[in-house]
Amino acid sequence: MTPYDDCWLRYDHITADDVRASYRRRCRHAYVSEKSPECSAIRDELRRALPELLGAKPHFWHHPPTTVDGFLAIGTPDDMAMIAESVPVDAVAELEDGGFLIRAVTWNGADCLVVTASTDRGLVYGTFHLLRLLQLREPIDELEIREEPTYANRLLNQWDTPFRRSVERGYGGESIFDWERLPDLRPRYEDYARLLASVGINGIVLNNVNTTKPPRESANDAVGAFEGWQLLESRRLEDLTGLASLFRRYGIRPYLSVNFAAPMLVGDLDTADPLDENVRDWWREKADDVYELVPDLGGFLIKADSEGQPGPYDYDRDHVDGANAIARALEPHDGRVWWRAFVYGSHEDRAVQAYDTFEPLDGEFSDTVTVQIKNGPIDFQPREPVSTLFGAMPETDLGLEIQLTQEYTGQGVHATYHLPLWKEVFEFETQADGEGTPVKSLLRGAGQGVAGVANVGEDDTWTGHYLSQANLYAFGRVAWNPDLSVETITEEWVRQTFGADEVVVETVTEILRDSWEACIDYETGGLGLVHMMHNGEEFLENHYYPSPAEWPGYHGASEDGIGVDRTERGSGYTTQYRDPIAERYESVETCPEEFLLFFHHLPWDYELDDGTTVVQRLYDNCFDGVDEVKRLRDRWRTLEGRIDERRFRHVAERFDEQVAQAERWRDVLASYFREYSGIPDERGRIRRD
Amino acid sequence: MTPYDDCWLRYDHITADDVRASYRRRCRHAYVSEKSPECSAIRDELRRALPELLGAKPHFWHHPPTTVDGFLAIGTPDDMAMIAESVPVDAVAELEDGGFLIRAVTWNGADCLVVTASTDRGLVYGTFHLLRLLQLREPIDELEIREEPTYANRLLNQWDTPFRRSVERGYGGESIFDWERLPDLRPRYEDYARLLASVGINGIVLNNVNTTKPPRESANDAVGAFEGWQLLESRRLEDLTGLASLFRRYGIRPYLSVNFAAPMLVGDLDTADPLDENVRDWWREKADDVYELVPDLGGFLIKADSEGQPGPYDYDRDHVDGANAIARALEPHDGRVWWRAFVYGSHEDRAVQAYDTFEPLDGEFSDTVTVQIKNGPIDFQPREPVSTLFGAMPETDLGLEIQLTQEYTGQGVHATYHLPLWKEVFEFETQADGEGTPVKSLLRGAGQGVAGVANVGEDDTWTGHYLSQANLYAFGRVAWNPDLSVETITEEWVRQTFGADEVVVETVTEILRDSWEACIDYETGGLGLVHMMHNGEEFLENHYYPSPAEWPGYHGASEDGIGVDRTERGSGYTTQYRDPIAERYESVETCPEEFLLFFHHLPWDYELDDGTTVVQRLYDNCFDGVDEVKRLRDRWRTLEGRIDERRFRHVAERFDEQVAQAERWRDVLASYFREYSGIPDERGRIRRD
Repeated sequence: MTPYDDCWLRYDHITADDVRASYRRRCRHAYVSEKSPECSAIRDELRRALPELLGAKPHFWHHPPTTVDGFLAIGTPDDMAMIAESVPVDAVAELEDGGFLIRAVTWNGADCLVVTASTDRGLVYGTFHLLRLLQLREPIDELEIREEPTYANRLLNQWDTPFRRSVERGYGGESIFDWERLPDLRPRYEDYARLLASVGINGIVLNNVNTTKPPRESANDAVGAFEGWQLLESRRLEDLTGLASLFRRYGIRPYLSVNFAAPMLVGDLDTADPLDENVRDWWREKADDVYELVPDLGGFLIKADSEGQPGPYDYDRDHVDGANAIARALEPHDGRVWWRAFVYGSHEDRAVQAYDTFEPLDGEFSDTVTVQIKNGPIDFQPREPVSTLFGAMPETDLGLEIQLTQEYTGQGVHATYHLPLWKEVFEFETQADGEGTPVKSLLRGAGQGVAGVANVGEDDTWTGHYLSQANLYAFGRVAWNPDLSVETITEEWVRQTFGADEVVVETVTEILRDSWEACIDYETGGLGLVHMMHNGEEFLENHYYPSPAEWPGYHGASEDGIGVDRTERGSGYTTQYRDPIAERYESVETCPEEFLLFFHHLPWDYELDDGTTVVQRLYDNCFDGVDEVKRLRDRWRTLEGRIDERRFRHVAERFDEQVAQAERWRDVLASYFREYSGIPDERGRIRRD
Repeated sequence: MTPYDDCWLRYDHITADDVRASYRRRCRHAYVSEKSPECSAIRDELRRALPELLGAKPHFWHHPPTTVDGFLAIGTPDDMAMIAESVPVDAVAELEDGGFLIRAVTWNGADCLVVTASTDRGLVYGTFHLLRLLQLREPIDELEIREEPTYANRLLNQWDTPFRRSVERGYGGESIFDWERLPDLRPRYEDYARLLASVGINGIVLNNVNTTKPPRESANDAVGAFEGWQLLESRRLEDLTGLASLFRRYGIRPYLSVNFAAPMLVGDLDTADPLDENVRDWWREKADDVYELVPDLGGFLIKADSEGQPGPYDYDRDHVDGANAIARALEPHDGRVWWRAFVYGSHEDRAVQAYDTFEPLDGEFSDTVTVQIKNGPIDFQPREPVSTLFGAMPETDLGLEIQLTQEYTGQGVHATYHLPLWKEVFEFETQADGEGTPVKSLLRGAGQGVAGVANVGEDDTWTGHYLSQANLYAFGRVAWNPDLSVETITEEWVRQTFGADEVVVETVTEILRDSWEACIDYETGGLGLVHMMHNGEEFLENHYYPSPAEWPGYHGASEDGIGVDRTERGSGYTTQYRDPIAERYESVETCPEEFLLFFHHLPWDYELDDGTTVVQRLYDNCFDGVDEVKRLRDRWRTLEGRIDERRFRHVAERFDEQVAQAERWRDVLASYFREYSGIPDERGRIRRD
């Protein structure tokens, strides 16, 4: 990697003499156990990092330490006496997979450091954690850290189309995966694996959930033609082996998105009915073949009966039938089916459908099926209330699906940091089991976790917008530990990415922190409206520009008011929540203002608590959002000369464009509200007034 | 470049002893005049090419030749006595800009080669022409070549969006232009310039004609927000200088797509009215600034009052007012305005609008305006009749716009070679000045020429599909000389790209030659139907899949028949042609079958000359098209082992996908025809029958 694209793994030289001296003392020598590919990756990483950070090369040993000089030792207690003698062996053995222990110890009279774990994957995370501490210039002389991941599954979902090397909703260039040249490996794959492992991501779905792309009017005709490769074809699986080995070194299991109709598309069956014996045999044999080649494959991700993809409904079966049939084939191999709950189309209010479809199936899914649910009931809007399925399926393994890529939040142009959004979701009190059951408490357990739709590509920046790297970083960190605060994670990223200049740290952290609320204001008006965006023909037009007139059903604007009645009298979405959440949303008096128009259709001149009307609040928020973006742009501009020219210009230019686009959003939305409501802006800011 | 991405500039070693000896004899020494950047580029190219081709390095001299040994001399007659003494100096002086003369001569008793021209740009073309001959293993001992370009302007139109680094309708990855890092230059720019110069392209429009991207419903509101950069901003122009210098070495003039409302977007005027004095002053001052930085800029390309772009209509002016006002600003600098004639929206039949709009303006455009017209009246469909504007504007400088990128012909997946399509257009007899005025005869003259929408990007292949490189090659060659046959150009490309194996040459040439007709058959049914494709949300869905139901107005399918009546009784498009063309298309009896349903709405069971019904012919063509693609795929498969594995697999895999997609096109179209007509396929090939 280069100083531009190395992201948060920069390993800048430590200039503070005392800090460097303290680090050097414990890292004069290093020994990493040599028993596994993971350990080999750790050794490579130390060779990259330590000379840069410390300005001196440690002596790398090839047998366990015996010296009396400062030593960094990495391995399990079985691997070497030094570790077995320095840590509570039983406590280490009890660590969850991926957990680790880092400890400053004195051994044979020397100041040493130990990174240990119960699994080799834990050693990888422990090493990256230690390197993070060094990059943050944290003191290490009293180090005593014990960490375990909160969730067992921390997956990235690539929406990459292998054949055409495109990325659906990707704004960072072509897919980094060059399938045509697989099994050949590119250096970029290893850098990607390092970035992912450094923040604890332990699974990657390599291809888009859309594995067939039928034109809309012939969705039922999906089988028989398809876009690109079905990765279950044998030759594709063979191509995959090298990539799988590479990710294995970093503790990352690969997954595949597969097509429900694969028995017809890849095999030569004439049905994909999940209850058909031939179909079940086909899946079992295919799974055996797959695991023969990739023994640690995580499993399959499946989008079925959704946006034209084939599914069990084609055979009058339900989601349970479909998911369980395939899961059964993976079970002997410790593989899971991740089955998406993103379904809509049959209900007037799209919000209610996923719950209506999946909640009745609770308890029927196999133990090796995870139902993967988007954070909100619509589709990654700037802000949505939390999906009602969380808390409604206690007998089912659930995965929370969130989006790193900025499909609806400015794509590769706007600086929009998603961590505050995700934290709002994690902390949302579902009342599933009374007070104290926030979303984050519902995703523990071996078959549960978090899935993030990735934002990377071939672009030099990896993510299109340089600051969007923070979304990748934050995803890994919050999926590792959802209790970490926005401030902690953000500051970690900024310090590792931009260095220790306190002005820079404070400025960038503030920009990231405030960016999401600004986006909500100018893209929605801040009262819970959704789908205000344009649905254009061109890739970069789509979901980028404002165009509320295209979606009246989603936001409910009419002459008499705005918002969608999703209360009991309306679509009933509120009733899918548990009390007292349901009650809170049901009543216009108690419904939080940020979701007011998501749940209620209100007159334009309805008075809010402070006496302001709905339409005036919408105006105010739209204008405030633009002002806020300008303020953030100006804050960024103060960094000129404090950071390198290239990164400064890259972000500065995007901010100029973001301001122009935010003004467009504001103007289109305000005019739209103005036209329907007939009520002018009190402050006369809308041109026509 | 590498052996994979060097395209047709591979310079493979010549293995035939006699050929190599003959080449070596005349290239033991080389001297290239040293007076200009172009000459420096030539010298660099020879240093790349000759050692590879000949297996021996020529001795490069730094002063004109005096020796008696074999010499390759490149320069104008003024540059050195050897050339002045070896060629007819007056004839060289008379060569058009870009023309050249190559001659095998004996000088001082030695066998020498001379490449000469009237301009340095001509020397570039002459050099690449000579290198082409060497790559083709042509004998050179009797060489006597005199070439001039048929058209003065041979332009590429990049549809690249600088800011987001995307390429509209581009299937070869991100834009190769990394504007953020300009004025820094990347090696890829030089390789691109070499590829373009090697086929005679002499102008490149660096950015997309869509310079603002308003949502459709608010086209009038375009000013005030915009996508990405307006390249007329001063800082963007400064960034451009390095790139311009690089292209200058290869005789390529850069052009910019500019926004009609630039006086408001870039300047701070509150109008862009072309008759407003302030607006005119603004353009003049801006042009002065531009040419100060880039003195050889070719001019501006403008899309106005088209698909939401601002234009003179916003001020009740016409296209002449708009184009001439801007042209006047460029005139002192030898710059031109290329003004696109792609307008539609106000007429029920889109085909008739461009003629209705532009024909009455003939004679009113300034001498420094070129009206750029797409080859057909719709939009780059697989096959269209020629635009009626060709031949209808004798007093106006015209440019023919064609598409290299395969927007409607399989994008980055299908092997579809566009040269046969272009040749059909060039050879089309317009009868503008009686018999003998084909389209190709109407584009001569200093202000005229050909513009091709480019198909390149960051992908290793440059063009997404490796065989699509042939479209880039063929464009340059046919724009240099439209009289060259499809066979000649194609075989040139194949030999230079794949080497001299006759089986390979014959096979690839055949595949390219037959690919277009196959595409027409499966994508349209072969009787002149247009717009059968899907208009999807996603970039790669859009214009790729079949979906005739979306566009009944374009192809006229109904229960009583199919086709659109564009005769005098219908939309009248036929009447825009001159007789006897108009008469030929007007009558269903004489209308060529390939355009029958473009011009006529006919009953499904209308009988064609051979007694087959219209619907049956549509079925047959759809099925034939698929069979033909399968045949071409099988032909390609015979090359396994004869060409390198990487290129073999790349194309083979695309062919597999093309077959699947062609079957989808066939099935969707055939079912659609079947449903409307109620007439089964005689041969029972449609599933429902």
